[in-house]
Amino acid sequence: MEKNEEKIYVFGHKNPDTDSICSSLVEASFAKKNGCNAEAVRLGNVNKETKYVLDYLGIEEPRLLEEVEEGQSVILVDHNEFTQSVKGIENAKIEAVIDHHRIADIKTSTPLYYTAKPYGCTSTILYEENKNKIEIGKIEATLMASAIISDTLLLKSPTTTKYDEKALEELAKIAEINVEEYGLEMLKAGTNLDDFSVEELINLDAKKMEINGKTIVIAQVNTVSIEDSLKRKEQLEKAMEDEINNSKLDLFVLAITDILNSNSQLIALGKEREVVEKGFNKKIENNMIFAEGVVSRKKQILPAIDKNI
Amino acid sequence: MEKNEEKIYVFGHKNPDTDSICSSLVEASFAKKNGCNAEAVRLGNVNKETKYVLDYLGIEEPRLLEEVEEGQSVILVDHNEFTQSVKGIENAKIEAVIDHHRIADIKTSTPLYYTAKPYGCTSTILYEENKNKIEIGKIEATLMASAIISDTLLLKSPTTTKYDEKALEELAKIAEINVEEYGLEMLKAGTNLDDFSVEELINLDAKKMEINGKTIVIAQVNTVSIEDSLKRKEQLEKAMEDEINNSKLDLFVLAITDILNSNSQLIALGKEREVVEKGFNKKIENNMIFAEGVVSRKKQILPAIDKNI
Repeated sequence: MEKNEEKIYVFGHKNPDTDSICSSLVEASFAKKNGCNAEAVRLGNVNKETKYVLDYLGIEEPRLLEEVEEGQSVILVDHNEFTQSVKGIENAKIEAVIDHHRIADIKTSTPLYYTAKPYGCTSTILYEENKNKIEIGKIEATLMASAIISDTLLLKSPTTTKYDEKALEELAKIAEINVEEYGLEMLKAGTNLDDFSVEELINLDAKKMEINGKTIVIAQVNTVSIEDSLKRKEQLEKAMEDEINNSKLDLFVLAITDILNSNSQLIALGKEREVVEKGFNKKIENNMIFAEGVVSRKKQILPAIDKNI
Repeated sequence: MEKNEEKIYVFGHKNPDTDSICSSLVEASFAKKNGCNAEAVRLGNVNKETKYVLDYLGIEEPRLLEEVEEGQSVILVDHNEFTQSVKGIENAKIEAVIDHHRIADIKTSTPLYYTAKPYGCTSTILYEENKNKIEIGKIEATLMASAIISDTLLLKSPTTTKYDEKALEELAKIAEINVEEYGLEMLKAGTNLDDFSVEELINLDAKKMEINGKTIVIAQVNTVSIEDSLKRKEQLEKAMEDEINNSKLDLFVLAITDILNSNSQLIALGKEREVVEKGFNKKIENNMIFAEGVVSRKKQILPAIDKNI
């Protein structure tokens, strides 16, 4: 990005996770150092894991952005699909995208900066692209390290690349953190879900997609005990059914992911749910499929559904 | 791109221009240096300007690719829209995109490398991204310099950025060319259109797009004399009308661009042609609008149409 006096909003996807919030803050900070009038904003509530990071650093969460006006300059991090972005994005001026997801459902009328790499985390790309150009401070390094720990579940997710490992190692030194210790505390902070209602739980980290004309939602919650999370199974199912009816969904998958043992219990509802059976080659029982070794929505759950829908 | 033994095809858009051919050759060459089994291919005939470049270097044109099979690994340069790409692209595996256009109508199921910048030429991005990583040879430098000269009309097009200027300056040294001298010869070689039929002329550098449900084609030919090119005006119009009927187009614009004086004569046909009047704030007379200072399809003609259709 070049020097730019116009206000530029920087944000991640709806239902922001730690990568979306941290990468927004870091990209806005880098853009400011390059002379841009950038502000990190968020498209939804900050989750408990991210709150742990912000509290650790003693910094405020970005303010909530509900909608953008026509022609508003924006930078998208950690997403590109308009269905996951802010209201009004179709008519905004997308100056840049920094992302690590597939491309779909994005359309601009003018050329832009777009940097995507098939890495485990947006912050890894941000770090790689800027480490030789900008001096990276302790707060920026901690934010990026936290994003990498979150997205790769402490480098254990199959989405993890050698670039994420290298970036985390280098960032941890600048951040002066012990990755294992800090990382486990951070991840655990995100799994304390007791004071969320079931409606909140199924929306905490939910992504809505259109695939071959079908509307699907894949939501994910991390836990240290799947058993504990299933104590509210019936209520969760009721909330998912309501969401299916209200939003006319063809499929709703909730992945309850055990971050210590790297497995996921999937709850699958909706008239297209047999694609989940096909995708994981298992029968749905009690609305559930236990997916061994599955922790990544992007690399494991979405492809299994995408190729069968 | 990482080391990869699988065959990877590298290509630019249909109706390839000099940037599409040269950037394909250079990206394939860089990818090979990085251990990838890459081959530059083309999606259509090489134009006379590009032929001048290949003859100057004494190298063969890439072979023609008609279609890709499902799962075929590909790298797209100088385009991203599927309508401008190879047959079968929907089911190919897009490993990387290097482009300088807007994003639209591209969809992948997995993450990928995507590098776009709002520069005047794809080769400028290729050069910037690789100059500190790979040793750039004389042939590669000449190909990239030629692409920049072509896309920016010797740095005179409004699409030209300071990055194109800098890259061309540095590349010309490695290529050992006098930019003005070599560039003018190259551009002139591309304007000798006498032995093309009118059907060929309107397809030489034509881009088809879907905008708000309308199908439009914007074709462009470069010339050193608009007057000369208009000697076949009636035949050109007939060929355009045929194309409109055969391909169910809503609008066909042919830009005849005077590369010496930087103006374009637009011929506009089709039921949506009043958008061209709105876009340039002029009345169509004899099917034509004279667009002063207009040389760039991407930066001038397309936006004028896009905002009115």
